Amino acid sequence: MQKRPLYPPFTIGVDLGGTNTVYAIVDKTGYIIDRDSFPTKTPSVDVWADILADGICRMIDKNSLQGNIVGIGIGAPSANATTGSIEGSTNLPWPPPVPLSNLIEARLGLPVKVNNDANAAAIGEKAYGVAAGMNDFIVLTLGTGVGGGIVCNGHLLSGARGFAGELGHVTFPFAQDRVCGCGRKGCLETVASARGIVETAKRLMKTTDKPSMLRKKTEEELTSKTIAEAANAGDELAKEVFDFTGECLGKAAAEFASFTDPEAIILFGGVAKAGDLLINPMREAFGKHTLHLYRDRVRFLISSLEGANAALVGAASLPLG
Amino acid sequence: MQKRPLYPPFTIGVDLGGTNTVYAIVDKTGYIIDRDSFPTKTPSVDVWADILADGICRMIDKNSLQGNIVGIGIGAPSANATTGSIEGSTNLPWPPPVPLSNLIEARLGLPVKVNNDANAAAIGEKAYGVAAGMNDFIVLTLGTGVGGGIVCNGHLLSGARGFAGELGHVTFPFAQDRVCGCGRKGCLETVASARGIVETAKRLMKTTDKPSMLRKKTEEELTSKTIAEAANAGDELAKEVFDFTGECLGKAAAEFASFTDPEAIILFGGVAKAGDLLINPMREAFGKHTLHLYRDRVRFLISSLEGANAALVGAASLPLG
Repeated sequence: MQKRPLYPPFTIGVDLGGTNTVYAIVDKTGYIIDRDSFPTKTPSVDVWADILADGICRMIDKNSLQGNIVGIGIGAPSANATTGSIEGSTNLPWPPPVPLSNLIEARLGLPVKVNNDANAAAIGEKAYGVAAGMNDFIVLTLGTGVGGGIVCNGHLLSGARGFAGELGHVTFPFAQDRVCGCGRKGCLETVASARGIVETAKRLMKTTDKPSMLRKKTEEELTSKTIAEAANAGDELAKEVFDFTGECLGKAAAEFASFTDPEAIILFGGVAKAGDLLINPMREAFGKHTLHLYRDRVRFLISSLEGANAALVGAASLPLG
Repeated sequence: MQKRPLYPPFTIGVDLGGTNTVYAIVDKTGYIIDRDSFPTKTPSVDVWADILADGICRMIDKNSLQGNIVGIGIGAPSANATTGSIEGSTNLPWPPPVPLSNLIEARLGLPVKVNNDANAAAIGEKAYGVAAGMNDFIVLTLGTGVGGGIVCNGHLLSGARGFAGELGHVTFPFAQDRVCGCGRKGCLETVASARGIVETAKRLMKTTDKPSMLRKKTEEELTSKTIAEAANAGDELAKEVFDFTGECLGKAAAEFASFTDPEAIILFGGVAKAGDLLINPMREAFGKHTLHLYRDRVRFLISSLEGANAALVGAASLPLG
């Protein structure tokens, strides 16, 4: 088998999830040279850091890349780039704040950049994905929650304390009848997250008597993924769910444009796999609702980073951002 | 009379208004060393540029500052920093696009930076005003219209085509019954501009029978300024106008915070002179409506740039930004 050429600089990406911690060596093109993982649940955060540092060392040795790693990027929920720590509550086994960057820098002597998954996704799209060459774009991560990563004038926006881009918690009239996990009403997240999509399907099944293959699904089977599959198979009610979600995203994007005049708005994450089911109604609603300055000027794109590894290569891109 | 010491670098500020063009030499502290003006209405934009260039040359000579001017900043309605031109319709005597920066650079051989008044205000506040030393803040200019200037991570945001920060045209539920000049409904401008404030007063006079000194005012006498005077004199209905406007601004700011995590939100322009009448209800509504991450973390300030010259020194700050 011919060996793929590798392009420096090389970085380490760490995707810190509630269940598993995945880490990898990634080259300049976003290619994963090697990867490994271990369960995040450990007796203490110090034990977790020991396991991670040890694993990274062995991976660097195994691939003969000693002295060739320019930095480590860690993507984690509620991670704050300014402090290098996890702040705010998460589904991780350790109470906040978790001083991620200090813990790993002390063990490996390499610069560590930490950010939340949405900001890591934004830098990842610029480094390896559909935002290559762009200086002004917004990434919306649509998953369990909804996050935002904003690049403007070529810079990832972090803000005064690292909390810029919380676009899942901008509120809208279309969601005023939904309560968000943050305690407020009307957040974009209540509609455009995986949970929001399931909620929309449930409401449509309850308030209409349209036939739908979704009606046969159990509570566990009804997910944003199975709703997308039904829509792609021609199920009208399921299509309506994505029409509504896309319309809401378009209305939201219409307002977001007024902040940073983006060249593109990029959907990222599990829900974004619905692709045109979301993008088409989103583009239409954007055109209807945005200020004339932005009409027909913003591209709507789906992340090109490979599904399961998107968060990982996003994290690996942080030292380059 | 003792002469005030002057601090380099020196810049030229030009405030291009529909009626007058005002220009000045300004020092590093925002002190106006010399100023002059002429009517903007001229037979052509070339004649206008000739008069301005000639005036600037003579002013530099008169103050013996030849070779000491680092640049020229022009603040103008619908001016686009990226192209250096006025784009979009304005109340100026020439049809767009007006290639401002080319016109003046060609005549004076000095670097020219052009921006709209809201962005000039933001750079001005950072250079000489209440945002000195801040890297993350939002300026809202409240005048005939409402504009926004966003500084994040130390940079003024311009966006893909120079149209970032159009915060007067973010739409909100509280203004859904008001049509904006842009043709859309619910823009912040319909409530928080001088015209919006007059409209709120008219509506309150129509829908309530509260006594008010405003009821005796003619159409011409009813302005945001006279309403503020009435409120300061204890007029309950006039106070209610500012309570409503401040509440709307607070709700808007609550959403704006999610974009750039600002340290401060600064009110600028004629309407902002109402001061605490606006800031107090604004702060209260912000606390009620914003995401917990931003609560009690954002300062609400009134511009400290001297009223009539604020736009002028804002323009003068552009070469420093």
